[in-house]
Amino acid sequence: MGTPAARTAPGSVGTVDTQFMDLSEPVQLDCGRQLHPVRIAYETYGTLSLARDNVILVCHALSGDAHAAGLSSKPPVASTRDGFAAEDRDRSSSQGLGWWDGMIGPGKAFDTERFFVISTNLLGGCGGTTGPSSVDPATGQPYGSNFPVISVADMVRTQRAFLGQLGVDRLAAVAGGSLGGMQAFEWAILYPDRVDAIVAIASTHALQPQGVAWNAIARNAITGDPAWQGGHYYGTGRKPDAGMGVARMVGHMTYLSAKSLGDKFDRRLQFAEDVRYTLTEPEFEIENYLRRQADTFVRRFDANTYLYTSRALTYFDLARQYGNGRLADALQNVSARTLLIAFSSDWLYPPAGSEELADALRSLGKPVECRVIDAPYGHDCFLLEEARQTPMIRDFLSRQGI
Amino acid sequence: MGTPAARTAPGSVGTVDTQFMDLSEPVQLDCGRQLHPVRIAYETYGTLSLARDNVILVCHALSGDAHAAGLSSKPPVASTRDGFAAEDRDRSSSQGLGWWDGMIGPGKAFDTERFFVISTNLLGGCGGTTGPSSVDPATGQPYGSNFPVISVADMVRTQRAFLGQLGVDRLAAVAGGSLGGMQAFEWAILYPDRVDAIVAIASTHALQPQGVAWNAIARNAITGDPAWQGGHYYGTGRKPDAGMGVARMVGHMTYLSAKSLGDKFDRRLQFAEDVRYTLTEPEFEIENYLRRQADTFVRRFDANTYLYTSRALTYFDLARQYGNGRLADALQNVSARTLLIAFSSDWLYPPAGSEELADALRSLGKPVECRVIDAPYGHDCFLLEEARQTPMIRDFLSRQGI
Repeated sequence: MGTPAARTAPGSVGTVDTQFMDLSEPVQLDCGRQLHPVRIAYETYGTLSLARDNVILVCHALSGDAHAAGLSSKPPVASTRDGFAAEDRDRSSSQGLGWWDGMIGPGKAFDTERFFVISTNLLGGCGGTTGPSSVDPATGQPYGSNFPVISVADMVRTQRAFLGQLGVDRLAAVAGGSLGGMQAFEWAILYPDRVDAIVAIASTHALQPQGVAWNAIARNAITGDPAWQGGHYYGTGRKPDAGMGVARMVGHMTYLSAKSLGDKFDRRLQFAEDVRYTLTEPEFEIENYLRRQADTFVRRFDANTYLYTSRALTYFDLARQYGNGRLADALQNVSARTLLIAFSSDWLYPPAGSEELADALRSLGKPVECRVIDAPYGHDCFLLEEARQTPMIRDFLSRQGI
Repeated sequence: MGTPAARTAPGSVGTVDTQFMDLSEPVQLDCGRQLHPVRIAYETYGTLSLARDNVILVCHALSGDAHAAGLSSKPPVASTRDGFAAEDRDRSSSQGLGWWDGMIGPGKAFDTERFFVISTNLLGGCGGTTGPSSVDPATGQPYGSNFPVISVADMVRTQRAFLGQLGVDRLAAVAGGSLGGMQAFEWAILYPDRVDAIVAIASTHALQPQGVAWNAIARNAITGDPAWQGGHYYGTGRKPDAGMGVARMVGHMTYLSAKSLGDKFDRRLQFAEDVRYTLTEPEFEIENYLRRQADTFVRRFDANTYLYTSRALTYFDLARQYGNGRLADALQNVSARTLLIAFSSDWLYPPAGSEELADALRSLGKPVECRVIDAPYGHDCFLLEEARQTPMIRDFLSRQGI
């Protein structure tokens, strides 16, 4: 529940409830299937203006959920914050803080004294929105791998349907990091008349081949675990924790830079005296750290959601989807102002991807800012370098005409 | 068996047999245990001089074996060559070529018209040398995870015992890439009076923390596979192919650079028309490539050997082992001339490691050359950039006083 001190911390949105809404219409998916019913888990921070023109949608990354800011009203099970430092994550977990709490609140980057911020758990998620662990009405059993394969565009169409039902027809901004940034681009392309600005951080128009490969390896680790059972592990008393743990370790490594790992762990051993010549025990601190990351993750996250979301983010490719292979063609209809932020040490979503996007938008005469922050923590910078992102985002949003 | 054309190819050592020798004495290991009996699988290329002063020992990397050059006299099961391009590997496999055939032979970097080249399968291996798949005389069953945990120094002590029994007391050079280079350093430190020169390619004095982590993840993938059965899978009809496949994919990715993956695969799809919205099928060419790599590897390599060898190479740390944390102190007794070759795009064994070694040797007044080759293929460069390494190595060895 959080301590009173934490609850009244300056800049906090306070204690928040996750809310739920059932969509009245089926969602039409890229794969050709329809999904119905669809429930959306969401949170809101700040106050909707009378003109309903101050809404910012924030979109989470691969392993997030709707709890983006403030203290959860529910006792925290484990953190949803994906930052680097274990200490940070543990602290966040113990207080039930949202994954982007440093960026959303009074006076923060996404200033809740000015904006009404909405955060949803994405389609296919395991944080309350309909996903593979939800019950398939056709069978009365959880979907498992019968859940339709979804795209980032599907996630965004679902958000649009949800917002429409909520009475929000226009967004002052869509913002997110990593996969969250991909959703922002989809918004700008699918609904150019409904989005005034997008903020895409540590993101790209298409995951580079190395990222496609790391994601494929993580998925193979899950599907190769016999406890995955072809995706139908719900209710069996077994789930693919071993494979999911390896998937998380792989993913986690790709979020960190060699330098940040070196600075934090070096080659320090767990036991001061020397190596112990064991085959399976962690002997290096970094081995132990990775195992703890894996153990925490498998307790809080559904393996099928990981598979579906990973698949969607590797499919995502604006040039292929909308431009016949040409990025600039894909962006022709964008009317939103665009802020791109990238990090020098991010080798999973390297700055080159943001720069390509910026070049393509500029070639079309679209308003775009691309900022590359020199920081050493890899992809995780997007959750760690809040102090340097904040003025960039505040400045960008302050030029909004509301 | 190779075609006649291949057998008579210029620069080939021709058809070779793997030979075997049983050590007469037990090997004393760093973990405190002794190992006996120990069998060594080895091959030789060239002719031993009367003075027995022209011997070069080549040491293989994580997944290699004794078959370093020429055509195997046995029908090839699968390649031992760890190069990048699938085409190369397939060609190598179909002809049974050794993993360093481009570097060993008449007129090549390790010139068999001048040197007598010896290649052994390392201790713990699965290519004929005693390892975890060998029978434990105490039980009559394969060791499995009862095999002692070994170090790179143990591998080198075993090589020394083998060479002594072969009648070779002095080496003109020890050479290897990656883990093979680590063995060369151990030779120079453990037996300074017996080694005239070392050639360490794409290697280091201690794996950097990111490399320690990737190795830990690969081992976790294997030991987390229930088919591993605590290491006692021999004879059960099941083996940890799924976990081993993931381990191989992880390892393989760390050998390649983002650029080489991009150049080779980009984001090309398997099927020309579009994505097919499948959860588990490979849809990108790179996904298919990784699965083929995994499938080939699990057929030819023992999972326990992978675990033990990976453990040894993460333990390896010259400063910790021999210098109380100071690299220069560890290298004090080295008398061998040293050639270090590193590759600009190798992020697993970055050039900085070779440069640290060179600086430490120079600070002690030891003869050392450090060459950094600008090449885009990552760690795999050591097997691919043969043309540029050859003159460096030939020139270095030509200054040998024999």
